[in-house]
Amino acid sequence: MDKYVIGVDFGTDSVRALVVNTRTGKEEASAVSYYKRWAQGLYCDPANNQFRQHPLDYIESLQECITGALAQLPKEVADHVVGIGIDTTGSTPCAVDQTGTPLALLPEFSENPNAMFILWKDHTAVQEAAEINDYAWNHSSIDYTKYVGGIYSSEWFWAKILHIYRQDPQVREAAYSWVEHCDWMPALLAGVKSVEEIKRSRCAAGHKAMWHPEWNGLPSEEFFTAIDPIMAGVTKNMYTETYPADELAGVLCEEWAEKLGLKPGIAIAVGAFDAHMGAVGGGVTDRALVKIMGTSTCDIMVASYDVMQDKLVRGICGQVDGSVIPGMVGLEAGQSAFGDVFAWFRNVLLWPLVNAVEGTVSPEVVEQISDQILPRLTEAAEALSVEDTQVIALDWLNGRRTPDADQALKGALLGLNLGSDAPRLFRALVEATAFGAKAVIDRFVEEGVEIDEVIALGGIPKKNPFVMQVAADVFNMPIKVTESDQTCALGAAMFAAVAAKVYPNIHEAQKQMGTRFSETYLPRPEQAAKYQEKYRKYLAIGGLLEDTLRNL
Amino acid sequence: MDKYVIGVDFGTDSVRALVVNTRTGKEEASAVSYYKRWAQGLYCDPANNQFRQHPLDYIESLQECITGALAQLPKEVADHVVGIGIDTTGSTPCAVDQTGTPLALLPEFSENPNAMFILWKDHTAVQEAAEINDYAWNHSSIDYTKYVGGIYSSEWFWAKILHIYRQDPQVREAAYSWVEHCDWMPALLAGVKSVEEIKRSRCAAGHKAMWHPEWNGLPSEEFFTAIDPIMAGVTKNMYTETYPADELAGVLCEEWAEKLGLKPGIAIAVGAFDAHMGAVGGGVTDRALVKIMGTSTCDIMVASYDVMQDKLVRGICGQVDGSVIPGMVGLEAGQSAFGDVFAWFRNVLLWPLVNAVEGTVSPEVVEQISDQILPRLTEAAEALSVEDTQVIALDWLNGRRTPDADQALKGALLGLNLGSDAPRLFRALVEATAFGAKAVIDRFVEEGVEIDEVIALGGIPKKNPFVMQVAADVFNMPIKVTESDQTCALGAAMFAAVAAKVYPNIHEAQKQMGTRFSETYLPRPEQAAKYQEKYRKYLAIGGLLEDTLRNL
Repeated sequence: MDKYVIGVDFGTDSVRALVVNTRTGKEEASAVSYYKRWAQGLYCDPANNQFRQHPLDYIESLQECITGALAQLPKEVADHVVGIGIDTTGSTPCAVDQTGTPLALLPEFSENPNAMFILWKDHTAVQEAAEINDYAWNHSSIDYTKYVGGIYSSEWFWAKILHIYRQDPQVREAAYSWVEHCDWMPALLAGVKSVEEIKRSRCAAGHKAMWHPEWNGLPSEEFFTAIDPIMAGVTKNMYTETYPADELAGVLCEEWAEKLGLKPGIAIAVGAFDAHMGAVGGGVTDRALVKIMGTSTCDIMVASYDVMQDKLVRGICGQVDGSVIPGMVGLEAGQSAFGDVFAWFRNVLLWPLVNAVEGTVSPEVVEQISDQILPRLTEAAEALSVEDTQVIALDWLNGRRTPDADQALKGALLGLNLGSDAPRLFRALVEATAFGAKAVIDRFVEEGVEIDEVIALGGIPKKNPFVMQVAADVFNMPIKVTESDQTCALGAAMFAAVAAKVYPNIHEAQKQMGTRFSETYLPRPEQAAKYQEKYRKYLAIGGLLEDTLRNL
Repeated sequence: MDKYVIGVDFGTDSVRALVVNTRTGKEEASAVSYYKRWAQGLYCDPANNQFRQHPLDYIESLQECITGALAQLPKEVADHVVGIGIDTTGSTPCAVDQTGTPLALLPEFSENPNAMFILWKDHTAVQEAAEINDYAWNHSSIDYTKYVGGIYSSEWFWAKILHIYRQDPQVREAAYSWVEHCDWMPALLAGVKSVEEIKRSRCAAGHKAMWHPEWNGLPSEEFFTAIDPIMAGVTKNMYTETYPADELAGVLCEEWAEKLGLKPGIAIAVGAFDAHMGAVGGGVTDRALVKIMGTSTCDIMVASYDVMQDKLVRGICGQVDGSVIPGMVGLEAGQSAFGDVFAWFRNVLLWPLVNAVEGTVSPEVVEQISDQILPRLTEAAEALSVEDTQVIALDWLNGRRTPDADQALKGALLGLNLGSDAPRLFRALVEATAFGAKAVIDRFVEEGVEIDEVIALGGIPKKNPFVMQVAADVFNMPIKVTESDQTCALGAAMFAAVAAKVYPNIHEAQKQMGTRFSETYLPRPEQAAKYQEKYRKYLAIGGLLEDTLRNL
């Protein structure tokens, strides 16, 4: 019988498990489980940007989705599962005790949000990130931000730890070490019983924790204590070694083998972030940019050592050896808002209905119209030509992730006249998101990382062909859309196959378990030339307005 | 018995007649008549900005509204009507034969749009206006645009004549002279039978036809023929003399006396533009700016000779001795879009409903929501504080009339984030229209024409107190709103009273027939200070973006 692997993809609201045939790459079954406490809004305070997740949510949902997927298949499949690969969101760190147990699993911390996983989008540590940047840039002998694009984010590991240490002395005292979500899940399945045995993700460490061989691992203890003495001891029980996701984190322990109905001893791969495994599932190569396109985008590239040499790519989110594919440098970039830009416009247009005088429209009609808005706008915008709207938008409604991160930037719509109707504005917004993406591509190319094509996955590529065609025309480059709806989980499954030694390396796993593409958007030369001109305007206007928008 | 006068106000879609008691200023009755051919869209081509009105529309509606107003009053009132004053839109010129008859009233031209009145908003003559400006600025020994703000508009007299002459040789050959709508209506009532007897409006001549005493009337024939030889003879049967609106255009002829049920021989005042008579009806003084606020605004001031001396006010629409009040210099400015900015936003928000899948919403619901949008947005925007939105808008969605006319400018919305909801955008638009108005006020003040208060009339001041309060705060100046809904017609009635010698001059008529104010918006010091800061941002952003927006 064929061998199977399970790819597990922990997202923001739910986790999904995908059972894949290692010989054919066929996606045999999948199941999703939503986090129960999270769904009730527990431990969160959105008004203050606090987003926490309880480890029990992860534990319960993990069991539910894996058993749920297996239940759809003949019983013997479970006996032929040879490995599990896991990706998660990040940076999503949590304080753990000496056994590697998240503090919120201990009775005394079970209801304390500071003892839980601090979700990637938690923005409580803005002040702390600013202090880390200031110290790194202006006082430290080493600029530890140099491999993470030059700016440390409030969404990342150390900023969050410093924030919790300042907020919560109890958690500070109880914290033996900290783990990323993608470090902990494999350790849990492997039955790891001490922090020292946890195999740390290269991807999380390099992109979010300023880990780099140049300074032999993490930044020095002195770096953190100089920012705040409260950080004394913070690096003591951390780590120096990190591992790419094709290595073994351990093997499935008896307890979890029983919970999942799998054989104990099967391979558990080292974890990594969703976008990075998604890039592998999507068929990332050294000339193909993988774009995970949802509310925002995460853009992943890999580059050979030959290409990279000592290069520091300016203004991207990070470059880490082996973070995506072992033996190559993983490069991360992205756009702070993509689908969110369209959702914003939909919400603006929906305002009169949502706020109509009671009795004017029923909730059902509001919902119908809400569902219609983007498809109808897309139709109308598509019917326009490039020249039909002179409106130029800047897509920085949620700041700018790359190139040159600047979260203080804001969006704009310019060139409005009395004929600038909703489809024209929408078209301008679509073009702007494509221009923002093009600016990321251009930066890679300017820095010597060549790109021939784009591979797209995520919610947008399946939902909106018009957006994808505009992007292909603007990039003047083909865009291939992955067929799988679960490309991140597929990537995790590929890593499981390598960790289980079904394949000698990830390239071979990619080749055999194959990424399938459902469609390819080819650039249309005439449109591409017109957009090139409009893109120049976008860049010029963006440059002209940066300072103004930052200070509004 | 008291004496009565009739003020007649020809607007874009309709004409209204207002019967006023000269002793008390009481508005005794009024009636409106819509232009029938115009209402059917005849002779117009909106896609090409062609807007023409048939003289029969004016004739029929004039009779209908005057008789309609009189019919509401005791029979003897008609016998005590001593004069009629008329205002119209402008520049709205028409070719006439030697008798002063509009060509479209002749059988051979009855269906020819080029032989009709070319409405103020007809923009077919853009090219011709550009040529006139080029010649005036770069080739002519006299810059004839100097008293009309330095830029000749495609909406004005000569540009339209040149355009028609190029388009239509038949009209060119048949045209003995040209009249403004406000010249022709009084002449019609007075039974004038030759062009030479028509008393030309100072207001129309000075603000739209480059008439000025400095060059003894109109520009020279050579000026026009140098631009295009086709203009040969165009000034021959025009005029040198012009008249303020307190003078007699003539007396009511037998034919029209019978049509209207009035006594023949009563005074017909010289005509003028609606905004200028509206300013008089609104109580314009040398320190009060009258703002007629509708889809766009027309801003009227008067200044004494002492203040003006040899002054040329930069970047306004024109300065003409006696164009508003005899013995003072009339100054005109305005904003190209005001209510139109809000209507634009309403239409954008309404798009999903108007374009919903058939059967989702009924036309009645669409209409209900359409009516609700601006009131609901106003409520929500009013509940926000000045600091609640950092969005800055530029209000040039229809170009910029003043200061410094530039019809190529366009609007913008800057500082958008994912929380920029419809009320925040609307508030930014309201603020922007107030900032645009403040820029006009500032220009007058910079040029030495002091302003202490604003008098507001038109549709907006009655409909939206929030917009008016923001304006008062931004201006840091009180705004008084006229009580009458028909302030233009009231002004026309005041001029009728002077022409009929009920009062010796317009000041006395204003004093006795009084302007009443329904409310006064006082600036709130705390808000004013905050807006002052935001206004500086508006100016800075406008300056930064002018070139960009002009070229989009």
